[in-house]
Amino acid sequence: MAQKKEIRIGLIGTGFMGRTHSNGYNRVPNFFPELEYTPVLKAVCSRNAEKVQAFADQWGYESIETDWKALVARDDIDAVDICTPNDTHAEIAIAAAKAGKMILCEKPLARNIAEGQKMVDAAEEAGVATTVWYNYRRIPAVTLAKQIIDSGKLGKIFHYRANFLQDWTISADVPQGGTGTWRMDVEAAGSGVTGDLLAHCIDTAMWLNGAITDVSAVTETFVKERFHQGTGKVEPVGIDDACIFHCHFENGSLGLFESTRYARGHKALYTFEINGENASIRWDLHDLNRLEYFDHRDEGIVRGWRSVHVTDGDQPYMDKWWVPGLGIGYEHSFIHQVADFFKSLETGKACNPTFKDSLATQKVCEAVLDSAASKSWKDTGVSGTFD
Amino acid sequence: MAQKKEIRIGLIGTGFMGRTHSNGYNRVPNFFPELEYTPVLKAVCSRNAEKVQAFADQWGYESIETDWKALVARDDIDAVDICTPNDTHAEIAIAAAKAGKMILCEKPLARNIAEGQKMVDAAEEAGVATTVWYNYRRIPAVTLAKQIIDSGKLGKIFHYRANFLQDWTISADVPQGGTGTWRMDVEAAGSGVTGDLLAHCIDTAMWLNGAITDVSAVTETFVKERFHQGTGKVEPVGIDDACIFHCHFENGSLGLFESTRYARGHKALYTFEINGENASIRWDLHDLNRLEYFDHRDEGIVRGWRSVHVTDGDQPYMDKWWVPGLGIGYEHSFIHQVADFFKSLETGKACNPTFKDSLATQKVCEAVLDSAASKSWKDTGVSGTFD
Amino acid sequence: MAQKKEIRIGLIGTGFMGRTHSNGYNRVPNFFPELEYTPVLKAVCSRNAEKVQAFADQWGYESIETDWKALVARDDIDAVDICTPNDTHAEIAIAAAKAGKMILCEKPLARNIAEGQKMVDAAEEAGVATTVWYNYRRIPAVTLAKQIIDSGKLGKIFHYRANFLQDWTISADVPQGGTGTWRMDVEAAGSGVTGDLLAHCIDTAMWLNGAITDVSAVTETFVKERFHQGTGKVEPVGIDDACIFHCHFENGSLGLFESTRYARGHKALYTFEINGENASIRWDLHDLNRLEYFDHRDEGIVRGWRSVHVTDGDQPYMDKWWVPGLGIGYEHSFIHQVADFFKSLETGKACNPTFKDSLATQKVCEAVLDSAASKSWKDTGVSGTFD
Amino acid sequence: MAQKKEIRIGLIGTGFMGRTHSNGYNRVPNFFPELEYTPVLKAVCSRNAEKVQAFADQWGYESIETDWKALVARDDIDAVDICTPNDTHAEIAIAAAKAGKMILCEKPLARNIAEGQKMVDAAEEAGVATTVWYNYRRIPAVTLAKQIIDSGKLGKIFHYRANFLQDWTISADVPQGGTGTWRMDVEAAGSGVTGDLLAHCIDTAMWLNGAITDVSAVTETFVKERFHQGTGKVEPVGIDDACIFHCHFENGSLGLFESTRYARGHKALYTFEINGENASIRWDLHDLNRLEYFDHRDEGIVRGWRSVHVTDGDQPYMDKWWVPGLGIGYEHSFIHQVADFFKSLETGKACNPTFKDSLATQKVCEAVLDSAASKSWKDTGVSGTFD
Repeated sequence: MAQKKEIRIGLIGTGFMGRTHSNGYNRVPNFFPELEYTPVLKAVCSRNAEKVQAFADQWGYESIETDWKALVARDDIDAVDICTPNDTHAEIAIAAAKAGKMILCEKPLARNIAEGQKMVDAAEEAGVATTVWYNYRRIPAVTLAKQIIDSGKLGKIFHYRANFLQDWTISADVPQGGTGTWRMDVEAAGSGVTGDLLAHCIDTAMWLNGAITDVSAVTETFVKERFHQGTGKVEPVGIDDACIFHCHFENGSLGLFESTRYARGHKALYTFEINGENASIRWDLHDLNRLEYFDHRDEGIVRGWRSVHVTDGDQPYMDKWWVPGLGIGYEHSFIHQVADFFKSLETGKACNPTFKDSLATQKVCEAVLDSAASKSWKDTGVSGTFD
Repeated sequence: MAQKKEIRIGLIGTGFMGRTHSNGYNRVPNFFPELEYTPVLKAVCSRNAEKVQAFADQWGYESIETDWKALVARDDIDAVDICTPNDTHAEIAIAAAKAGKMILCEKPLARNIAEGQKMVDAAEEAGVATTVWYNYRRIPAVTLAKQIIDSGKLGKIFHYRANFLQDWTISADVPQGGTGTWRMDVEAAGSGVTGDLLAHCIDTAMWLNGAITDVSAVTETFVKERFHQGTGKVEPVGIDDACIFHCHFENGSLGLFESTRYARGHKALYTFEINGENASIRWDLHDLNRLEYFDHRDEGIVRGWRSVHVTDGDQPYMDKWWVPGLGIGYEHSFIHQVADFFKSLETGKACNPTFKDSLATQKVCEAVLDSAASKSWKDTGVSGTFD
Repeated sequence: MAQKKEIRIGLIGTGFMGRTHSNGYNRVPNFFPELEYTPVLKAVCSRNAEKVQAFADQWGYESIETDWKALVARDDIDAVDICTPNDTHAEIAIAAAKAGKMILCEKPLARNIAEGQKMVDAAEEAGVATTVWYNYRRIPAVTLAKQIIDSGKLGKIFHYRANFLQDWTISADVPQGGTGTWRMDVEAAGSGVTGDLLAHCIDTAMWLNGAITDVSAVTETFVKERFHQGTGKVEPVGIDDACIFHCHFENGSLGLFESTRYARGHKALYTFEINGENASIRWDLHDLNRLEYFDHRDEGIVRGWRSVHVTDGDQPYMDKWWVPGLGIGYEHSFIHQVADFFKSLETGKACNPTFKDSLATQKVCEAVLDSAASKSWKDTGVSGTFD
Repeated sequence: MAQKKEIRIGLIGTGFMGRTHSNGYNRVPNFFPELEYTPVLKAVCSRNAEKVQAFADQWGYESIETDWKALVARDDIDAVDICTPNDTHAEIAIAAAKAGKMILCEKPLARNIAEGQKMVDAAEEAGVATTVWYNYRRIPAVTLAKQIIDSGKLGKIFHYRANFLQDWTISADVPQGGTGTWRMDVEAAGSGVTGDLLAHCIDTAMWLNGAITDVSAVTETFVKERFHQGTGKVEPVGIDDACIFHCHFENGSLGLFESTRYARGHKALYTFEINGENASIRWDLHDLNRLEYFDHRDEGIVRGWRSVHVTDGDQPYMDKWWVPGLGIGYEHSFIHQVADFFKSLETGKACNPTFKDSLATQKVCEAVLDSAASKSWKDTGVSGTFD
């Protein structure tokens, strides 16, 4: 076996995303043996020493830290992976950039444009590789959608719509703040469904359909007060429980986006659909191995939406897995992102979305929130296409 | 308006099928105005004078009879429509043939081959037009399946499978015999699911895929005794509650059929699927406006089952109805059969399935029941194709 | 048979809706024999004498008119049914009201609030019964949705979303104006998808979920010029090809609506979904016999969206039709509306939506168009609930 | 971290199943950290030294062997995992048992009963733990089906049906024999779809619904001759391309099974359905995270098949993975089997199916093939229930 070049990973944060990323690093050597680079799980950091040690044991990290600054300062770390709450992304990323580390940052990039811009600037100044874990791009059916669109099969685009519907916060007993529910706390999260869920939809949308130029939004907070695990008191809820917006894309198509955590019956219903002059595509996270495709050029009497089970070796990433008909899961999107990040080190081509790409998503999110607050249309300032 | 040629209908039987047929006659002038022939609802017959009068009022029959022989004997009747229980089909049909009437007979043709053969002979001797109400052929999606198969799109056929699953007799309290439940009484019905449900599947199958040559079957009667509304006593159940058989088609393909009234959760799940070398088709009565079509010759990365919503004007019968996307229902298959029967009078081409075609289905049914009784393979004696 | 009370119908307009309404009148005596009232198809009116005579022959109208004013003036007409383009609704309806006729008017009520208000005023002054053909309310699955919501099963409502997607005007060769394509002509139609398609969605939504109070909309006209069959020239297109809006309902829930004729692959995809605290409902016109229902109170391990096939006798209207599992079609919604209109004459309770109810829908449509034009939120002025 | 007890694995065979098993061993420590036992990938064996070394490098095996006898003879191996073609299972397993190794054997157990019986005898004599990789039992939705059935929710069972449809051998160019296509060679595989695909269906069926007592089958070989990669010549094809059988279960229910590799459009359509007096269940490998459940005791107007997305923490195995709504894939069934095997070492309770359980499946397979060959019903000799 040719000697692999090692990338020594330092992971900060041991929550849900800490697990998905760790799994990604662990799986890549098994399924992408052709890569020149291979991860070494050098260190993991979280404040509670006992818990972080258990995490390290479970996932195979060689050492632990309880202070992220110590991790960032270590010489034996090549890449810092940020899985902490949103309010810490900027500070950690800027420090990591200054320390010359590659940075893999969980989405959203930051709480707002200001923080995000500083992160972009720091990374550019340091010249370090960055990527943001907008993982859904790398579900094979979604990657196939990109391939189909780029091939021109759809023709002129008229409509893009997406939603991300959940139902886990309907109970007024769900607290805000603290471990596990920091997403409910506006201070830690920056926003509610806009940054947490719509950011995914926006990232995919601009990747598939180009820039969103202006937006008109409405948000709602259905439960006005919740117990805060940090303050120990019932506090006003600052996040958006639901957000809807319509928009224009730079290519002239209309966009429609909705997200909520109050859609009873939907655990994680992320769907998108894109309608072109000649063909249309739609996808649903709940059946993530399928892509639906309609082609108007099919013979009329047998024309219909095709249910494409994206498990064949000639479909994106699927030569790495099993045989036709046998599906993969949610976690594989992260494995693919790790593989693509390592591949990007070989090719020198960025592993999108970078910090810079993700700042565009941040701009749309902020325009959405501004629009909802002001009850008016807002320009996003974003333009161009994204790869 | 050009004067239409009138076909004076005499309907015998006012149950469920009496309603579907009557609706067929009533609708054809509205939706098939181009036909040369038009029905006149001359008389309806049932034993209870009060009830048959109510039926006549509701459906627009000009007169009533309470003795089917009287109806058959009337000079002002051109066509006799038989909607009575299976044990009466042969006697009525033979009498009608002798009286020179056209005959539209509810399926199955008869209780057994012997009865069916006499009906065929009588009709041939009399030279009268016949048709049997295997209505599912004329659901547009099913007719489209025939068109697709006949076009050769599927290539060599390997498999045909069909089932017809219901759940309405699971309760041991469902009686046998009498109005409404004569289908549970072997004397009246001839058999259980084989003649009632599988006969439909077999008719469609041989129409689409040619003769079934030999069969191996199993039947089951889950509830052994039921109250009999005729005798007023609990009596052994003589019908088959469930029947499964596999078979060979003359074209070399394998067939698989199942029917039961004990499939909890299925009201009337009639589905069929046919797998060819190049393409496959499937259909489900619960979504009767759709045909699913898979074509292996589609480009690989976007290949999948197509969900064809059969509501376009270039699809069978659909130029008669509404606009694309707007579905029709179960009852329309009977309207189409009335229209096709009248059309057949114009063209002189038979309105299939005729008595003769339906005798082939009867032969398969009888071979199935014989096979189950003897636990051995049985030849059907059927050959050829059916249009 | 007890003598029925006759309602003598005068139909104006012989297009697509003329057919659906005529079928409704023809079917009601067969399927709703218990009604005290029965329709008599007294006259039908359209400008071309030959064509209207053919229509009369096909559908059984006793006489024809070529001038709607003549029809409205006839003493032997009890009820005027308006199936003409939208720009004629007001004038005909007002004349009919003044003549003391009952009025059944195709939707939308009018081109705008001003016209609609005059129609409401005229009908109220005359004291005549009115109904507007928002037929989708009377698809059994939709009526069942109303019954479920009214029973309180959903609890507090958070979200309502609906869309109506078509693809028939993507080609720039589709003309505007004239017979068959007057819906493309803003003068005749008043608006594009807003009045034609979203009006249906709004009617259903306010019936199920109460008043829409304020809206924020965007519209788009993708093809800017089309040949006009009236002027014989290429003319600017004045209608909205697509319209999206979000809104608040009076009950605090958020609404989201989208309609377009540029969604490749969708012939008539009318769907709605309503999310409540305890349960959710969704429906799709393409599978109109199904209602999907999710109940969070189901046992967790077997909890899921239920696919309810609305064909049982204890579900709305379905005791009139066939047996469980056998579906009905689009046209049946009109049959139900005719039956309900006749029933309303028995009970004295209105056959909703009346002109007045439909004016509320008109107000929302106008607010939507105003909002899109001004790029700002608009109040609708509507309040209360609708039955 | 408490010290884990190590189980030193020796894997024989590096094909498709070698990969799925290796992934299982690699993942268990990450996702089942609570287990007392942990795998050590001690050695992997295959005939080609270069290829097996590459496999060892990719999957983390410490050493290689090119002769399985050498591997079985090693003292540093606790458990032998057999992933070789079916014709080698018996010899390897018997040798492993004699060497006192635990045995994890890929399915089917053997080519026939005679081989399988010897394997059972050898394992029992040696007293070694065994398991057979009928992995589909451990897909969470399938495990949930078992849990639901065992809870009694279904009541008396009437029907069980399953199929496993593929389309990968339709082309006459697919060879038989050799690496990758030994499944096409009757000498290596023992049978065609019966042992390869129906064995899965039978294993699941007897686990869920008890013993299959007698069978009536038909098989077909559509392509009669294929190039043989071993002999280098076109040879007769000895396997069954398709197999259908119906059967009785000991509990009185009827069974129906079908498998083929000629069902165009189906890559790996493994579905089963079980109909009980009160409730029914169905499942489809193409959407493996879903279980459909129908409960007749639901309120009538909202009764329907429930689509249960099996991704909640209280559903089988899903506390180990992600959050509700986020699915897992095919490979996870193997991870679960590894975990359960290790758990069985803790509890002393067998990791079903053992060799003995799998011999029952082998008996049904052989009865099926015998029945097809003799065109008669065959008893299986199997009785009892399976856990």
